[in-house]
Amino acid sequence: MSYDYRKYKPFPPVSLPDRTWPDKTITKAPYWCSVDLRDGNQALPIPMSVEEKLELFELLLKIGFKEIEIGFPSASQTEFDYLRTLIDRNLIPDDVTIQLLTQSRDHLIRRSFEAIKGCKNVVMHFYNSTSTVQRDVVFQKDQKEIIKIAVEGATLIKKIAAEYPETNIRYEYSPESFTGTELEFAKEICEAVMDVLEPTPENQLILNLPATVEMHTPNIHADQIEWFSRNIKNRDCVLISLHTHNDRGTGVAAAELGLMAGADRVEGTLFGNGERTGNTDLITMAMNLYSQGVNPELDFSDIEHITKVYKSCTRMNVHERHPYVGELVYTAFSGSHQDAIKKGLDKYKSGTTGFWDIPYLPLDPSDMGREYEAIIRINSQSGKGGVAFILDSQFGYKLPKAMHPEFSRKIQMITDETGKELKGAEIFEEFSKEYLTVKSPWSLVKYEIKASMDVDTNGEEKNTVGISCSLKYKGELMTVDGQGNGPIDAFFHALQSTSAPKVHFLSYDEHALSEGADSQAVCYIQVADSKGRSYFGVGVDSSINAASLKALLCAVNRIEANSK
Amino acid sequence: MSYDYRKYKPFPPVSLPDRTWPDKTITKAPYWCSVDLRDGNQALPIPMSVEEKLELFELLLKIGFKEIEIGFPSASQTEFDYLRTLIDRNLIPDDVTIQLLTQSRDHLIRRSFEAIKGCKNVVMHFYNSTSTVQRDVVFQKDQKEIIKIAVEGATLIKKIAAEYPETNIRYEYSPESFTGTELEFAKEICEAVMDVLEPTPENQLILNLPATVEMHTPNIHADQIEWFSRNIKNRDCVLISLHTHNDRGTGVAAAELGLMAGADRVEGTLFGNGERTGNTDLITMAMNLYSQGVNPELDFSDIEHITKVYKSCTRMNVHERHPYVGELVYTAFSGSHQDAIKKGLDKYKSGTTGFWDIPYLPLDPSDMGREYEAIIRINSQSGKGGVAFILDSQFGYKLPKAMHPEFSRKIQMITDETGKELKGAEIFEEFSKEYLTVKSPWSLVKYEIKASMDVDTNGEEKNTVGISCSLKYKGELMTVDGQGNGPIDAFFHALQSTSAPKVHFLSYDEHALSEGADSQAVCYIQVADSKGRSYFGVGVDSSINAASLKALLCAVNRIEANSK
Repeated sequence: MSYDYRKYKPFPPVSLPDRTWPDKTITKAPYWCSVDLRDGNQALPIPMSVEEKLELFELLLKIGFKEIEIGFPSASQTEFDYLRTLIDRNLIPDDVTIQLLTQSRDHLIRRSFEAIKGCKNVVMHFYNSTSTVQRDVVFQKDQKEIIKIAVEGATLIKKIAAEYPETNIRYEYSPESFTGTELEFAKEICEAVMDVLEPTPENQLILNLPATVEMHTPNIHADQIEWFSRNIKNRDCVLISLHTHNDRGTGVAAAELGLMAGADRVEGTLFGNGERTGNTDLITMAMNLYSQGVNPELDFSDIEHITKVYKSCTRMNVHERHPYVGELVYTAFSGSHQDAIKKGLDKYKSGTTGFWDIPYLPLDPSDMGREYEAIIRINSQSGKGGVAFILDSQFGYKLPKAMHPEFSRKIQMITDETGKELKGAEIFEEFSKEYLTVKSPWSLVKYEIKASMDVDTNGEEKNTVGISCSLKYKGELMTVDGQGNGPIDAFFHALQSTSAPKVHFLSYDEHALSEGADSQAVCYIQVADSKGRSYFGVGVDSSINAASLKALLCAVNRIEANSK
Repeated sequence: MSYDYRKYKPFPPVSLPDRTWPDKTITKAPYWCSVDLRDGNQALPIPMSVEEKLELFELLLKIGFKEIEIGFPSASQTEFDYLRTLIDRNLIPDDVTIQLLTQSRDHLIRRSFEAIKGCKNVVMHFYNSTSTVQRDVVFQKDQKEIIKIAVEGATLIKKIAAEYPETNIRYEYSPESFTGTELEFAKEICEAVMDVLEPTPENQLILNLPATVEMHTPNIHADQIEWFSRNIKNRDCVLISLHTHNDRGTGVAAAELGLMAGADRVEGTLFGNGERTGNTDLITMAMNLYSQGVNPELDFSDIEHITKVYKSCTRMNVHERHPYVGELVYTAFSGSHQDAIKKGLDKYKSGTTGFWDIPYLPLDPSDMGREYEAIIRINSQSGKGGVAFILDSQFGYKLPKAMHPEFSRKIQMITDETGKELKGAEIFEEFSKEYLTVKSPWSLVKYEIKASMDVDTNGEEKNTVGISCSLKYKGELMTVDGQGNGPIDAFFHALQSTSAPKVHFLSYDEHALSEGADSQAVCYIQVADSKGRSYFGVGVDSSINAASLKALLCAVNRIEANSK
């Protein structure tokens, strides 16, 4: 019986009844450190080539990262060569710090320093494992011996660093597997490292507290960080750095609550690439800040380009539903959602609301270079609002609200039958077929309108319109005349002298399809047939008169088609 | 300038200084409700066909779901037909409840009830939107009018439900977009619904509080839920249900903290499928419980099958790093990780530790039907532990620790050159080439051993072994003899009479390659050449004697090869 939850033990919570982080909010961006080229690259089935690493490095600079961990040059010739290329080709801007990982052994540290020769700003990042299981099972060393490894490493690095006065060297120490380490011991080993490196408020030591494996709900991570931040000595001499993983799917949450708990810095990767389930996704974290009105200090405005470079360098996929980025993230399939989005966008565009507050769209897609027209797709469960939105946003047809159900039923029949969604162009094709290209049995051949306005004996304005038009009915030409208070009314009366079905006028809407005097007008006319059933007709013409006559004929034709 | 964080306003936090949830842990599974066939299906570019829905329904039953929301049958003929198929073919077990969504309009409710005719257990789920933006922008109704919609819906549903006495009908009400609703108003509208439906502790009303859009850090969600749970009247008459989305990448965290805050029930989907960024992923949530020693009440032991059915029905992808499931989730690429995993697994298998506690492997992959051999892949950054692990776990060769660096250097040279990872079989091929198939210049043709043990004058046992063997050196046959205290020692001496390089014996390891007396033995012999350089040799034979002679010759051959 291998599926047995009883072989796992629950993580013991932290006792911190006076915790303060749940009352905090994040009001500024942390220091960001990209570990795409180290933790990220390390977890790729096919590691990046030097050329791919250079391309990704350039992308990270463009996004705005100021600290970039580039690898473990003492452990791999590829990583050594890559770092030398960055330095020798002068590819590292003066305000960017290169971070490298090294183990605490003499020849590896010396080799790491060889790799950075000539580099301006460096964070030398050393670590050892401190968790109970690592101590007991992997290293078989007690706490004192584990502290000794850290202290010896710190001493050695400090000594060799003194030989590189031309490089601005800062230090980072990670008690690796921090989340599985007793908090008291984590504090003790970090303070032992501080005793060697003697950080000051001006020259802070980075203490990185990795959730190497995510082992608990994210609130426990926050408790650990708050405990550490409150208890570490000389707090102003250290920067607390987070490095969460995503084994429980809550890596971003853990990092966010960790910032609320007092951390200063976050290590992570684009799209959360990294060992196993990956690292903190810095795109999600940054855009979470952005969409709360906080400057993220990272620029993800061209996310399509970022995604393309990322995918080609790492050969990893980006999921359709990846927050802020996935292909389906800015879609809405439900009718009620589509309707609400349409109303929200209309209001936002009208400028009466200062802030972005659109139902079902927490972020304006255009902020990241995504397109509005991709928002809505039509399937059998889309409502009328969605179809209307497509016709409006993509084709300029603003269907009257009363018309939405009529045309939506048509679309729903099609999607119910095929089980497929319809694209915008397919919806418009159905719209054309149903309304715009209907020319039989009735069609308008030509017309003449005489319109006049006069003031009657009571001093009120009175419109008189006379129409004379040639119609074709099943190939047969006829001329009819009518009078009314407007062209539509006149045409109504003219039609009554024919065999066309008798209709009752219900509503009329007309608008220009585009800007400018020479634009086309579109007219929607709603009539009821003799049984009271509603029908819409649509007409398009450069003349508003012709558009309305065509619309009325369209409605009549649709009644005849439906009464067959 | 479209990339501008200033167009967003921060979410106002909940004032709940006496919150209790941060001190809670989750100690039992919530009631689970799958919304795969509704929220999930609704968000698919190509919605599922009836056949695909039946297949997914069967899968959900097999996993153990007891509540399954199947759709919105009044809004779509496909969903109506599908529900009728489930009922008419008798596919719904007696202990499973079907949930359906309906709007609060007379003909839609009647149509929904037509759909459930003959069904045993039903949750009738109705909702309306309650958030500020929905009220102001979408519905343009005030709070009273919004409450009226909910109350009228409840009244109508209760009335029509009375006509279906043969069905066990429960109710669920969702103040949709709860996370954007003032808490006081959410309480007011839910209590108004309670006044109509009159729930009791025996017949509880489900109050589902959807994070329709994720709008804040997950702790705020927990504060909202705790506030609601503490303030709603007749708490024992309602079940509080969560329904989180993942717009900020923290949907699972929000649901977990929501459970700590007092909720009873979770709606979500497999793999987090659903609108935009998706719903709560119930696989992750369940396995998060499982790996803390809590019975998840859902069975994900055959995750390969579940993944296959899910992908084929929804046409969605599962990301390589999806928690617990992704292709890369049980891999470790870093040498130090591989080494630690190996030690952890060895300890776990030895049975001295009761609980699963393996570094970098929070879950035993075999619990979900995944394979150990997929855990480790070798690339240029893998350490010696990884190579040894592969040879051990996949091929049964337990290389002595001192041998790891020698062979790992070989592998690292290859991966550094090619930039590619090596699969297990490729690593074994290199191992064979380097050690097992080396037969020149020296090879063993035949041997005879005479071994005796005697007690000397001091009463101590003394072994004497005489060996006589035929060797081939570059095609030339020779016979040599030697004496020693064991066969290896004797062979050492025999070799000294030849032109073979002089070596100094360092270490010897031998083990069976499989169980049983007829298994092959593998022997590892380490020697130093005249300059003190270490070389390993490996020999495999059904006889432990022959294996060790071959191993020594292998080491000698490798010295000759390297001294060329």
